[in-house]
Amino acid sequence: MELVWQHRWAVDAYPLNSSTIVLALRVARCTPVLRVRVHFGDRYEPHFQDSCEACRYGSDGAFDWFTCEVAVPTRRLKYAFEVLSPSGCVVYLGEGGLAHALDAVQPFHYPYIHPSQVLTVPDWVGHAVAYQIFPDRFAMGEPRLVRPTDPWDAPPAPKSVFGGNLRGIVEKLAYLSDLGVNLVYLTPIFQAPSNHKYDTQDYFSVDPAFGTLDDLKLLVKEAHRLGIRVVLDAVFNHSGFCFAPFRDVRARGKASSYWSWFFVHGDHVDVESVNYETFASGLRDMPKLNLAEPSAQAYFLNVAKHYVLECDIDGWRFDVANEIDPQFWPRLRSELRALKQDILLIGEIWHDSLPWLTGNAFDGVMNYPLRELVLRYAVDESMDEFAFAEGWVRLYLQYPRAAWRAMWNLLGSHDTERVLTRARGHVPSVVLAFAMLFTLPGIPMVYYGDEIGMEGGADPDCRRGMPWDANLWKRDLREAIRQLAWLKRTHPALAGDRMEILDVKPGVLHYLRHGGTGSHLHVALGKRRALGIGKDSPLFAWGVPSRTGEDRTVLIWECDSHEGCRHDSRTDGSHDQ
Amino acid sequence: MELVWQHRWAVDAYPLNSSTIVLALRVARCTPVLRVRVHFGDRYEPHFQDSCEACRYGSDGAFDWFTCEVAVPTRRLKYAFEVLSPSGCVVYLGEGGLAHALDAVQPFHYPYIHPSQVLTVPDWVGHAVAYQIFPDRFAMGEPRLVRPTDPWDAPPAPKSVFGGNLRGIVEKLAYLSDLGVNLVYLTPIFQAPSNHKYDTQDYFSVDPAFGTLDDLKLLVKEAHRLGIRVVLDAVFNHSGFCFAPFRDVRARGKASSYWSWFFVHGDHVDVESVNYETFASGLRDMPKLNLAEPSAQAYFLNVAKHYVLECDIDGWRFDVANEIDPQFWPRLRSELRALKQDILLIGEIWHDSLPWLTGNAFDGVMNYPLRELVLRYAVDESMDEFAFAEGWVRLYLQYPRAAWRAMWNLLGSHDTERVLTRARGHVPSVVLAFAMLFTLPGIPMVYYGDEIGMEGGADPDCRRGMPWDANLWKRDLREAIRQLAWLKRTHPALAGDRMEILDVKPGVLHYLRHGGTGSHLHVALGKRRALGIGKDSPLFAWGVPSRTGEDRTVLIWECDSHEGCRHDSRTDGSHDQ
Repeated sequence: MELVWQHRWAVDAYPLNSSTIVLALRVARCTPVLRVRVHFGDRYEPHFQDSCEACRYGSDGAFDWFTCEVAVPTRRLKYAFEVLSPSGCVVYLGEGGLAHALDAVQPFHYPYIHPSQVLTVPDWVGHAVAYQIFPDRFAMGEPRLVRPTDPWDAPPAPKSVFGGNLRGIVEKLAYLSDLGVNLVYLTPIFQAPSNHKYDTQDYFSVDPAFGTLDDLKLLVKEAHRLGIRVVLDAVFNHSGFCFAPFRDVRARGKASSYWSWFFVHGDHVDVESVNYETFASGLRDMPKLNLAEPSAQAYFLNVAKHYVLECDIDGWRFDVANEIDPQFWPRLRSELRALKQDILLIGEIWHDSLPWLTGNAFDGVMNYPLRELVLRYAVDESMDEFAFAEGWVRLYLQYPRAAWRAMWNLLGSHDTERVLTRARGHVPSVVLAFAMLFTLPGIPMVYYGDEIGMEGGADPDCRRGMPWDANLWKRDLREAIRQLAWLKRTHPALAGDRMEILDVKPGVLHYLRHGGTGSHLHVALGKRRALGIGKDSPLFAWGVPSRTGEDRTVLIWECDSHEGCRHDSRTDGSHDQ
Repeated sequence: MELVWQHRWAVDAYPLNSSTIVLALRVARCTPVLRVRVHFGDRYEPHFQDSCEACRYGSDGAFDWFTCEVAVPTRRLKYAFEVLSPSGCVVYLGEGGLAHALDAVQPFHYPYIHPSQVLTVPDWVGHAVAYQIFPDRFAMGEPRLVRPTDPWDAPPAPKSVFGGNLRGIVEKLAYLSDLGVNLVYLTPIFQAPSNHKYDTQDYFSVDPAFGTLDDLKLLVKEAHRLGIRVVLDAVFNHSGFCFAPFRDVRARGKASSYWSWFFVHGDHVDVESVNYETFASGLRDMPKLNLAEPSAQAYFLNVAKHYVLECDIDGWRFDVANEIDPQFWPRLRSELRALKQDILLIGEIWHDSLPWLTGNAFDGVMNYPLRELVLRYAVDESMDEFAFAEGWVRLYLQYPRAAWRAMWNLLGSHDTERVLTRARGHVPSVVLAFAMLFTLPGIPMVYYGDEIGMEGGADPDCRRGMPWDANLWKRDLREAIRQLAWLKRTHPALAGDRMEILDVKPGVLHYLRHGGTGSHLHVALGKRRALGIGKDSPLFAWGVPSRTGEDRTVLIWECDSHEGCRHDSRTDGSHDQ
């Protein structure tokens, strides 16, 4: 029996908790298999002690994925796969390759489940609805702290200052609460010359344009009163040009005790040639920080702890997290968790993020790959149901499941064009995309103003002033998001990390969310005619008039049990029921 | 074009140094490809800036592996693969899957090369020849320190004490030097009740049965005088029953300040039921240590540093390394390297070891998977040339190349049957196996006595007393190993990490070792007739009379350049020349 398969224990095996390991086996579709069993046991026992079936989750286009959970009472596991081909042949897979008998296989080993390698995310994320605010552009509260360079409704230029501030956010907390938001993420607010504040001058001061430390405390306190958590932006990959340690390095060269905090090529800083590493390339105002340096590590650890201790913030989002020395994260995580047990830690990583989601770095990352999938399927219509399902399978199974509760799922941010602009103004497509965002595992995050239909191209256009005149709002869009937020906030099926694709066929994408107990939630999207699902009382229903072809629709409904409403779970459409 | 492929950047991409990244792409053999190119550039640049060909290294049976090195002057990389099928179709591969145009592909990203993620191994390992000693069984020096329980030449029982000691090893350093050994690894020597000393009572004392701290100092000093380095065994996964902190926990229960150093289930230690985690399962005398605990970490860091500072040892081998909390290793590595720049750190890991070979843990591991391949091919003859080559490709490409300079390649140890016993006494097969061990990348390690033909089954039989009466030796075996050791010690081609399979066909395995410059070394093994290579003056030649079929042979010769002596590099035998 020929078999093309992949399983690497460090990638395709991870602990769900201290006594359960999740395994995944990928089998290339060119060598199809009928069934997969896992034989397993303590790695010091001579024989396998137990076995279980691995279920086919779906296909990523090239590989069929089989997964299962195995019980590991002793924290140590050995295991091998038994694979049955459609023709009835059986082979066994282990670390040494294929074998034709179970006792001839060299098993895989998961040596020991260390608590530090079990990803545990805060329990509250299950019902979190997040909202991203770019403070200069959200709301201008009293007293006004700066003289704006441009009117609030002008198209922003790279250096525009509009005058939004923390008091403005405080004034709008009721608005956010009404929308269903219970987590606010602010892009940087510490002292920095730019409007975006990603060029920090002083990590220990709130920027005077935004307010004071007391304003921040007030914001957190008022937010907490409304059940809203607050996450701040930690820019630790690089500082600003006027950050005191970099000023010292500029002034004193190698004699500076901060010399090793930066990457200067030569004996002194040459500002003209930018002879030092920066964020991206040659950005004079953003010198890259060296967080492998213990004294720098200690400093930024203190920054992170300071705002938890002083202001009681609920989490950090780490800017450019994948370019920071990874040795920094385990210590940061354990020290922050010791201060606040349920603090949320999110990395800004646009790409494959597995190494940061294995228990000792972040709870989740900004989920740009999911954004791409949802936009291509729901908004661009450049991806069909099969391609979406394949992309989902590849993305979903590449991370530990726990991370999926904490992923920041987004349709746009201060770094991308806005979703309504991507949809060329077509609100119904945007509702479809948000319906997916709110019903897939993870924390749905709304970029300020997306809920009322703000438009905007790439930076700086995506950073316009939020219009507070409700007459300028797309109220149907906002109402749809309000309904979806309510569903996310209250339905137990949306709190977990499980999602199953029940049916994929031309014009139909049907998936299921369920927790361990309670009712299940069904989400069906697609062409109205193909979908053909009539539900008397859906929790959410939205018709999407066609721009280009057939009308589309999205329906969300609940069902008491998994059985009785389950369609064929294959994603290849070859066995439609 | 259908394509079944695998590339995960955290697994199949690693930095060779601060400005070079090695990439590997696996393509399933069911979807063959003709050529692979890599397009790459700085990840902040809008377009790819350069491209290069990825060469086919070989096949692991299911996948063809293509690899290349790309230059990364800015430490940040994005890249995509261009794949040409035999029919002339081209597809592009990136993080988001397949695309049909280069500008439509979502590239992979390697975010940043951190120095902490570049594996650097000591330069001296390139010519290292290691020898493993089980001190109680190697040599009894004067003064004798214990009364043996059994005669030196008796079959060992689990609790036998034979009386070998450190002075005995000192006396035999000249013997080892003559054999070509320049690295000695001692299984544990610290105070412990058992003969194997894996149940440490006092990490800060040499066991009185073996000698004193001064004896250890003398051993290191005399070894260094002969150009022999000394590596000790660090048993940090578990302690012995009488280790003072465990005694305190037994006596004082949760009131002990060492309580968190162990994993006790309950309020106090119950020795009868063994209500605490141990090495393996229920081994009363080996309570498992919790190295996630900072105070325990600090203690064992001190142990590791103590013997470097006091005795100038050259490395540590870490017992059961894959069951110790991995947070321990980065700190251990950086602190030990700071004490001794070229110290060698080896993990005892029998299985897939990638997570420990990425720059912040070990230089290499005990290479049991290679042992299995070599024994099956050279000794058991249960694996043919094709299967060996496939196994080699899978094993070799799964680790960063630098690790291959430091892998501890072995044919047997105190934990396995001896190689000559595995060979059912057939010395020529053992020579064949050693010829491979000494010419494949890594540090060949001889288990004491294997060089003179000691036999022994599984523990305790593999721990017999070393016979010092030369009349009992297999002198031809020892002479072969001496020649191979000399080759390893002196030939530049064997110092590096590169190995290429030049030819595989029935009865022929032909591979090449080469450094960046200088002459290349060819190794050809197989059936004498099929091999058909006549070399006037090989550096090493050994005929292996058949036990079961055709005679076999091994030939090692040099060649001035890569070109002119290169055979077809495909390993599938389909294009024999």
